[in-house]
Amino acid sequence: MEHTENIFERLESEVRSYCRGWPVVFEESYGHTVIDESGREYIDFFAGAGALNYGHNNPVLKAKLLDYISGNGISHSLDMMTEAKSDFLEAMDERILSPRNLDYKVMFPGPTGTNSVEAALKLARQITGRTNVIAFTNAFHGMTLGSLALTGNGSKRDGAGVPLGNVTRMPYHRYLDDTDTIDLLAKHLEDTSSGVDMPAALILELVQAEGGVNVATNPWLRRLEKLLKEHGVLLIVDDIQAGCGRTGTFFSFESAGLDPDIVCLSKSLSGYGTPMAVTMFRRELDQWEPGKHNGTFRGHNLAFVTATAALHEYWQDDALTNQIKKKANIMRGVLDKIAEQVPEEAQQVRGRGMIQGIEFKDPATAGAICAAAFNRGLLIETSGASDEVLKLLPPLTIEESALTQGLEILQESVEEALVSIGN
Amino acid sequence: MEHTENIFERLESEVRSYCRGWPVVFEESYGHTVIDESGREYIDFFAGAGALNYGHNNPVLKAKLLDYISGNGISHSLDMMTEAKSDFLEAMDERILSPRNLDYKVMFPGPTGTNSVEAALKLARQITGRTNVIAFTNAFHGMTLGSLALTGNGSKRDGAGVPLGNVTRMPYHRYLDDTDTIDLLAKHLEDTSSGVDMPAALILELVQAEGGVNVATNPWLRRLEKLLKEHGVLLIVDDIQAGCGRTGTFFSFESAGLDPDIVCLSKSLSGYGTPMAVTMFRRELDQWEPGKHNGTFRGHNLAFVTATAALHEYWQDDALTNQIKKKANIMRGVLDKIAEQVPEEAQQVRGRGMIQGIEFKDPATAGAICAAAFNRGLLIETSGASDEVLKLLPPLTIEESALTQGLEILQESVEEALVSIGN
Amino acid sequence: MEHTENIFERLESEVRSYCRGWPVVFEESYGHTVIDESGREYIDFFAGAGALNYGHNNPVLKAKLLDYISGNGISHSLDMMTEAKSDFLEAMDERILSPRNLDYKVMFPGPTGTNSVEAALKLARQITGRTNVIAFTNAFHGMTLGSLALTGNGSKRDGAGVPLGNVTRMPYHRYLDDTDTIDLLAKHLEDTSSGVDMPAALILELVQAEGGVNVATNPWLRRLEKLLKEHGVLLIVDDIQAGCGRTGTFFSFESAGLDPDIVCLSKSLSGYGTPMAVTMFRRELDQWEPGKHNGTFRGHNLAFVTATAALHEYWQDDALTNQIKKKANIMRGVLDKIAEQVPEEAQQVRGRGMIQGIEFKDPATAGAICAAAFNRGLLIETSGASDEVLKLLPPLTIEESALTQGLEILQESVEEALVSIGN
Amino acid sequence: MEHTENIFERLESEVRSYCRGWPVVFEESYGHTVIDESGREYIDFFAGAGALNYGHNNPVLKAKLLDYISGNGISHSLDMMTEAKSDFLEAMDERILSPRNLDYKVMFPGPTGTNSVEAALKLARQITGRTNVIAFTNAFHGMTLGSLALTGNGSKRDGAGVPLGNVTRMPYHRYLDDTDTIDLLAKHLEDTSSGVDMPAALILELVQAEGGVNVATNPWLRRLEKLLKEHGVLLIVDDIQAGCGRTGTFFSFESAGLDPDIVCLSKSLSGYGTPMAVTMFRRELDQWEPGKHNGTFRGHNLAFVTATAALHEYWQDDALTNQIKKKANIMRGVLDKIAEQVPEEAQQVRGRGMIQGIEFKDPATAGAICAAAFNRGLLIETSGASDEVLKLLPPLTIEESALTQGLEILQESVEEALVSIGN
Repeated sequence: MEHTENIFERLESEVRSYCRGWPVVFEESYGHTVIDESGREYIDFFAGAGALNYGHNNPVLKAKLLDYISGNGISHSLDMMTEAKSDFLEAMDERILSPRNLDYKVMFPGPTGTNSVEAALKLARQITGRTNVIAFTNAFHGMTLGSLALTGNGSKRDGAGVPLGNVTRMPYHRYLDDTDTIDLLAKHLEDTSSGVDMPAALILELVQAEGGVNVATNPWLRRLEKLLKEHGVLLIVDDIQAGCGRTGTFFSFESAGLDPDIVCLSKSLSGYGTPMAVTMFRRELDQWEPGKHNGTFRGHNLAFVTATAALHEYWQDDALTNQIKKKANIMRGVLDKIAEQVPEEAQQVRGRGMIQGIEFKDPATAGAICAAAFNRGLLIETSGASDEVLKLLPPLTIEESALTQGLEILQESVEEALVSIGN
Repeated sequence: MEHTENIFERLESEVRSYCRGWPVVFEESYGHTVIDESGREYIDFFAGAGALNYGHNNPVLKAKLLDYISGNGISHSLDMMTEAKSDFLEAMDERILSPRNLDYKVMFPGPTGTNSVEAALKLARQITGRTNVIAFTNAFHGMTLGSLALTGNGSKRDGAGVPLGNVTRMPYHRYLDDTDTIDLLAKHLEDTSSGVDMPAALILELVQAEGGVNVATNPWLRRLEKLLKEHGVLLIVDDIQAGCGRTGTFFSFESAGLDPDIVCLSKSLSGYGTPMAVTMFRRELDQWEPGKHNGTFRGHNLAFVTATAALHEYWQDDALTNQIKKKANIMRGVLDKIAEQVPEEAQQVRGRGMIQGIEFKDPATAGAICAAAFNRGLLIETSGASDEVLKLLPPLTIEESALTQGLEILQESVEEALVSIGN
Repeated sequence: MEHTENIFERLESEVRSYCRGWPVVFEESYGHTVIDESGREYIDFFAGAGALNYGHNNPVLKAKLLDYISGNGISHSLDMMTEAKSDFLEAMDERILSPRNLDYKVMFPGPTGTNSVEAALKLARQITGRTNVIAFTNAFHGMTLGSLALTGNGSKRDGAGVPLGNVTRMPYHRYLDDTDTIDLLAKHLEDTSSGVDMPAALILELVQAEGGVNVATNPWLRRLEKLLKEHGVLLIVDDIQAGCGRTGTFFSFESAGLDPDIVCLSKSLSGYGTPMAVTMFRRELDQWEPGKHNGTFRGHNLAFVTATAALHEYWQDDALTNQIKKKANIMRGVLDKIAEQVPEEAQQVRGRGMIQGIEFKDPATAGAICAAAFNRGLLIETSGASDEVLKLLPPLTIEESALTQGLEILQESVEEALVSIGN
Repeated sequence: MEHTENIFERLESEVRSYCRGWPVVFEESYGHTVIDESGREYIDFFAGAGALNYGHNNPVLKAKLLDYISGNGISHSLDMMTEAKSDFLEAMDERILSPRNLDYKVMFPGPTGTNSVEAALKLARQITGRTNVIAFTNAFHGMTLGSLALTGNGSKRDGAGVPLGNVTRMPYHRYLDDTDTIDLLAKHLEDTSSGVDMPAALILELVQAEGGVNVATNPWLRRLEKLLKEHGVLLIVDDIQAGCGRTGTFFSFESAGLDPDIVCLSKSLSGYGTPMAVTMFRRELDQWEPGKHNGTFRGHNLAFVTATAALHEYWQDDALTNQIKKKANIMRGVLDKIAEQVPEEAQQVRGRGMIQGIEFKDPATAGAICAAAFNRGLLIETSGASDEVLKLLPPLTIEESALTQGLEILQESVEEALVSIGN
């Protein structure tokens, strides 16, 4: 291990981050299991920050990928037409869009979430001729300048080195306990002297994952959508972390019955942890001029192949949705139990589907639990402004036995952490 | 073909572009050969806009990739440590950095060129505390808002829907035939009332590929670098399209003897057409705070595997460099001949290494040649502000016979195109 | 009259506004009386939008001004030293700053309110190294780009023709009836992921005059100031319309006991309706480099002369303050009575000192009252986002008899207006 | 003197500047003469930085002003109609616009130069729907954020504390000795990938006064205007310092025969050193909505009175223009002689009409000359990026004898300065 760790310290930029909390070199993985170079196994409750919803090296996807590569399938194609892309579009239509009556066009904006968000912003601004976009407190939408302007995190914003503009910040649901934050937004839009320029769009995460597992309720969401429609403001849903089944349905907005104008998807879209993203929008919004937005890796065909396989494997019926519901209940049950056991430390349990979190009064507690879990063979991370929320994000396909095992390790880790920090 | 083309028109956004000039569905590829679903073969003089320098499905890389996937190698790892990443860093050090005495740190900024440029901008602005960055006329650096502000193309800039700031534009070498454009930059930097805020950095392509195969000469480049050093302005080289051997050496700045502060690489870095990018910078500039820039797909291990293989296969000796030199001469010879044959239409032949171009007076000529070439089984594209430059970008590893065959098709296409547009 | 009105229509830009509601040519004025070219007299309840607190052509000031001009006193001096400026600084110190224990430095930023605000912004941003500034809903701070970014009015913002940045908008006191808007600001400042960049300053009007006579209460103001101090955010008070005695004390912040870091004054500062402004700030904030902000008309000595006379005449004792208190009660009494008489139409009476307003449900009501008043010889204007608030702004020095007469006209105008619009 | 100087040091902000070079308190002035509190007289070759073209306390204007004030003429009127404003508009039409066939509308944007420029920018951006504006190297257009973005001076720009955007900088005439700078601008506008967004307008000073008395030639100006017309870019002439007769004609653009779309005037417009400005534009550009730009001091009637008097007194025939021509020759003759006498130190004599300058190799020389001149009773200042240009700006109405006397003092001061700094 030494010689390899060496090269990271010697050659990789100080910007690296996750590797500091998990100081081992990983070598192999499958399903919910990750193995380091010493052969030690870990249960993965992190799933690539939501990029591995179907588990590591999912065998169904893997077989298709190996076949494709072996057969000299097109690997790279910019925005040319390929069979792999055709198959993906057909699958997206058949498995996702048509069943949900979504008449969306699909754009390949580049292979990452921030590409998808940047494309959504461009489209909304061009169509409306407006420059302002509303983003929420604690939002996370990416690191390139357009997306970063939407992102709440102060340290990451500061990285820009320039002031970030053309965004108005509004408080997310429950940002102030007893205030209906839609009232404020409504007044801002209605009052012509509010000083908030009429926005092109509002960008929304239905669950703020990086922001601390903050969950918007359906009534709040419906009121939000209604307000935006009244004012002709486009609704962009950033479903990059909460989409692809994470909350139980393919899109996170299905249970609230929202009808977004633009949807951003990435992370688990390829299903294999490989870079891929789409921006989708109502057909009548497809007012792009050819080539007005481009990029080298829009046609990442290896990702198309696994994405297609994932759509066919997991979204032809309700099996996965039902599984998620069941596992979510198991997760929630254990978190509620933990919260009861440490009422002084735990502030709140929250989440939807298989993204669940527990907020601690002291961020150090959450950090100590992660460290203890790692030592016991569980990969789990924090989120929130001060890393005060323990975030559970196992693969959706994890077996129940492994989920239970992981949750047991978590309970032990909580106990250990509380002892170690002096309780 | 019909049913598949159908799905693109029905479902894919109008923003798609290349597929309009090449209206076939591609299915398979190897080396310099691309095959459409009807079985028709094409010689590829486009190489994924420079993303396939080592050819399609390069067999050496492919074997490593299949092994890695079969063995359940880690696919996705954010910025955790993996064996694949370790191997890549070692190879980058051994094959590229050490032999060139470059004491760079390596950052994984996300898997695309624009991610690399955005990270470079952030770093330069943070380190210097300045917001302004100088970019050149006809530059191309990407589509996300930070990079797009650097990019010259008016239609793409317009896509932003917001004014793009914090960039000062300077004329590239030979932008005005007889004017030494460094004089203007020098005066701007020296004159405290020039109105040009002292920049954090200047970003440079040594060959402006998208901008029309514009080539900077070594004396101009050296004078530029000297001027920047005098004023404490960082030099960022965007080697995304011109790097990875395209001009003959691994980096495009080697022959001029430049010593850039920051270097952006992507496109052919993975060697397999899969998304990967790095931002590299002088060790003392590595002042990043952990996590200040992040992103889901920084640890694209499948790309690390092929990138490592490519570095070992092609950059352990001068063989590739020598080959490029030879093939570049062949290309240049044919282009010069074409230019002589159609002196009215052809304005200038230019290029370095295996990126070569020929500028036509009338952009329609360049377009007609591309169309004729496609019909004859050659994939070739235009670049430049008005698509007036035919750009030759074959895989570096193309066999000489195929290169010659492609150039013959090109010559025939020129003749056909000139006839068809009325000469 | 025809021939003169003619020239305005023919030659003056369509941007002109007040002259449309009062379509006469004014010729002479004194005290609270304005006379048009036909000889008709008007009682002035507008006072130059707060620029004529001491009445028109105040005889004390007029005498000093005539003397000064006759004696060839310096008229224009940029930022050179003159006797007139010396006298003004002495008077400001003796009559205003010293009695209030304000250890301020005085800057002459140019002769208008927006100059004063722009200078305040520059200073706050330079000192803190931060770019963001917080401004309130319905704020009005001026028309040049820096001040306009702070201003709430949508039509005026739109005039910029560019997006206005580096400002975060927060809801003013009672913007949402039952919400404590300080809570939201507090959370934004405390939460490092709120997405609101730590501001250099917050700019505050204690009474939002243009914004609709919105009044902040003392407890809210004190909580605001405390919060800003905790976070190291500078407090800028824009006292351009509410200062110079309008609310009863020289500064509007005296009754709340605030201790602003920076104060902007203009409008009635010269006392004669002539352009003059200052920006004042705590001594330790005077970190300006010589000449870093300049302008041609910073040394408007004719204005210094009358400003000095006004300070000595009106601010050597409490006489004016006591008068304002008495007259404010008279005004408030009548407004309350009106509100009682038309409970359906009148929403709220509000104000402080001699700026008082009455909000109507229907903006047309407020407009009709102004028109009726004009016909009856009373100049009065509306304010607020939709011009829904009738704003009373008589000269502070108006005689009680004239005040009463004006209020009677107002009552009659209300009755007439309500009849005319169908009540 | 001590006690008064005291108050400036104690109470006035460190931002003050001119008073540092001329450390006396001025008390009285008339014509070209300024008198300090000790009774010492100075010849004024500075004229309020161009705000006193008709001399101090011009007796014709003074008489009108005293009459108006004595008669209780309206002092302040926002944008209401007054007799004084009517008279001014009539005079502007009769004396200036009609004789020159200029079909301009007149806007009162606020009483200072920067107000005029901000209004011009707003109008140009609104009309064209574009955000970018082109400004020249070494330009000076004001200190509020919109104008400051146009201004070249680095220290003043830095005062903004935020990046200044929406402006593209182009080199002024002769910025690079032998380069035709129009070529660069032309290429930038023609090339759709130049990276310079098509501008709403270009703003031009025909003589850059603050920038170092840089003079544009008529052929260059005509080529510039032609180019802008071809591209539909509005031409804004900032005639704030060079207008009102300074170059010999009322507008500085008359000799080149330019036909600007928008003209900014201020400084000497009131004729009395009191704040006043207008923005004028071609009738068809008057697309302002009522009230979209406002401000308290747009109706500074005391300034209207003297402005009207000045127009009638000085612009009813060619007398002043002829005088300026004669005096300009005298000035130029002496400067040429100085330049011949000190060829090592003097770089260039340049100017137009009664703004003339001499550039010194070493800025210290120019500074030493100013200091020597002050000691000998002559007020003269420097300009240019490094204060390297001695700028002569006497009142246009100065008697020839005084002009000659001042020039003699200047010659003596040059000699003294060169001795004192070691020649």
